Order: sequence, then structure tokens, then C-alpha cells
Amino acid sequence: MEQNLTDTMSILSRTPATLDVLLRDLPEAWTLGNEGENTWSAFDVVGHLIHGERTDWMPRARMVLQFGETRTFEPFDRLAQVRESHGKSLDQLLDEFARLRSANLDQLRTLNLRKEDLARRGRHPALGVVTLSELLATWAAHDLTHLHQISRVMAHQYREAVGPWSRYLGVLQCAGHSSP
Amino acid sequence: MEQNLTDTMSILSRTPATLDVLLRDLPEAWTLGNEGENTWSAFDVVGHLIHGERTDWMPRARMVLQFGETRTFEPFDRLAQVRESHGKSLDQLLDEFARLRSANLDQLRTLNLRKEDLARRGRHPALGVVTLSELLATWAAHDLTHLHQISRVMAHQYREAVGPWSRYLGVLQCAGHSSP
Repeated sequence: MEQNLTDTMSILSRTPATLDVLLRDLPEAWTLGNEGENTWSAFDVVGHLIHGERTDWMPRARMVLQFGETRTFEPFDRLAQVRESHGKSLDQLLDEFARLRSANLDQLRTLNLRKEDLARRGRHPALGVVTLSELLATWAAHDLTHLHQISRVMAHQYREAVGPWSRYLGVLQCAGHSSP
Repeated sequence: MEQNLTDTMSILSRTPATLDVLLRDLPEAWTLGNEGENTWSAFDVVGHLIHGERTDWMPRARMVLQFGETRTFEPFDRLAQVRESHGKSLDQLLDEFARLRSANLDQLRTLNLRKEDLARRGRHPALGVVTLSELLATWAAHDLTHLHQISRVMAHQYREAVGPWSRYLGVLQCAGHSSP
């Protein structure tokens, strides 16, 4: 099953504004709270998304188009945001994510990809051969996995406050499979 | 652990705009797709949130303040949106949700709740005695459980398209514990 590139871009183009509306000026109890030791807060997730814009999605897409399966993607650093977000405010991160995403989508449009381009293959360091179509679909699904994570991390802050309702709230049963 | 009412309202006031930015004008593949028979699409979830604004949260809060534990809440109809959303567009539902939520938050502010009000008790038809604080915290966490669900339902539409990356995407491992 192949993705529809227009559908993919419709998600990718909305995520920065979705996170902006959800998180900007929210009390820090929501944005800095995590799920315990070695888990991420909403702030951490935005930093992770920024790192992906810089090093993952478009660099890998260009590598597929230029080198195909002959060159292996750089492994993605899942902890880079700890270093890179240090000393920044959430507002700064939200602005940075929006700017980088917008520039990346401009570049993606410039590639003017055809159906046969989407079938081109690259090499992932752990997954082996992948297609450009799968890479771009994953970019959008990765936004959704982190929206899923942020809503879970935020809900966790009210685990006690909701009292007996906790058993009815699916988000509080989620095992955290979308943590990093 | 008691909730902070300001924190609760900061979530409640943002959810309509978050869903608007995420969903309005999105291709129907995302907004009408569900996870299989008897599961909800994003469209269905917005309808469910509307029904909650009409019949659940503020009516129950007023019942606690007026009758305490002597009157049991009406059970919540989890399928009402099938009937009530029929023939409406997602744009109409998003507008309706925003209008109802805004009016409900105006009413909540007008109650001018003090700490001792939040400790008042009501009676839930299945959970038994609950406090007003727990009810209001659940209202916010319920928004988050459905944001969690919407992101999962949308990601499900790309389960095949992401190819081998599916094993890395936590949202695709989520067992659906936040479905209705």
C-alpha cells in the first residue's frame, strides 16, 4: 500500500501549529512533567522533533535519491534534544520546529517527486532496505506517534487527580509503548 | 492529590483550537478513517466531545453543587454522536464543539469555585462517590484521552504505508485501550 503524498504533506504541514496551539503558554506542570525517570516531557518531545527535521527525514530522502541502497542512513540520535534544547524556552523550540518544518516541506515540494521516485530504495542501518514512500509516510506517522505520546504524558500528570475515573480513561492504561 | 483549577482550564480552553488546527480541511482519508468495525474515526470523536459538552461535564458539576450525593448522575451515552452528528460536516462539528466549550467555560468561571467547593461530593452511577475536583480533572484528562485516540486512529491509516518502520512507531503498538 503506497501513501498519497498530498495526504502525508497535509499532516506534516499541520503538526507545528497543532503543537503550538496545544502547548504554548501552557503551565509548566503540563509541559515539563514527564512519566518518571528517563521519560520525556512535552518539552523534550518538541526538541526531538526539531532534531528529526535537522538530521533525519529530508537528509535521508536526499540520500535515497542520490545514492539509493549504496549508502546507509546515519543512525538517528534519540537523545540529541537533551543537549540541543538546553537553556531554550518551549516558545523558542516551537518557533524553531515550525521554521524547520516549513523549510523542509518547501524542499520536498521542490523535489517534485513522481510515482517512480517514491518507489526508490535506500538502506536503513537497522531495518535494511526501505523505500522513499515508506520514509515519507513514516515522517507523518512519527508526528502522530509523538502527539500520541504528548497527550499521554500530559494525562499522566492527572493520574491521581481524576480519582476513580482513571479506569475509564484509556490514555491512562497506555503502556507507554510510544515513549522513545 | 487535588487538581489546580487553572491548570485544568488551560487544557479545556485549548482543545477546540487544537482539534481545529489538526483536523479542519484535512483529507477525509484521515478524518473518516477508523480502526475497523465498531471503532471511531476522528469525526466520531469530535461528535462524542460535543455530546459531553451538552450532557456530561457541566450538568454533572451543577448537580454536585445542588444535590451532593443525593442524586445520581445520568449515565453518559457513548453512542449519541452517531445520531447527533448524522448529516453534519466536520467543519460544523468543530465549530459546534468550540462554541459549546467556550460557553461551558464561561459558566464554570461564573461558579467562582473555592477550594471547599472542589471537595464537594456527588454520586456516579457506576463509580459511586466522586468529588467535584475529580470530575473537573477528568474533563481535562478526557480531552487528552481523545487526542491520544485521534492520533492513534490517524496513524492506523498508514500502518501499511510505513513498511518496516511500523515496529519503531509506538502509536502503532497501542492496543486501543483509549477507544470508546
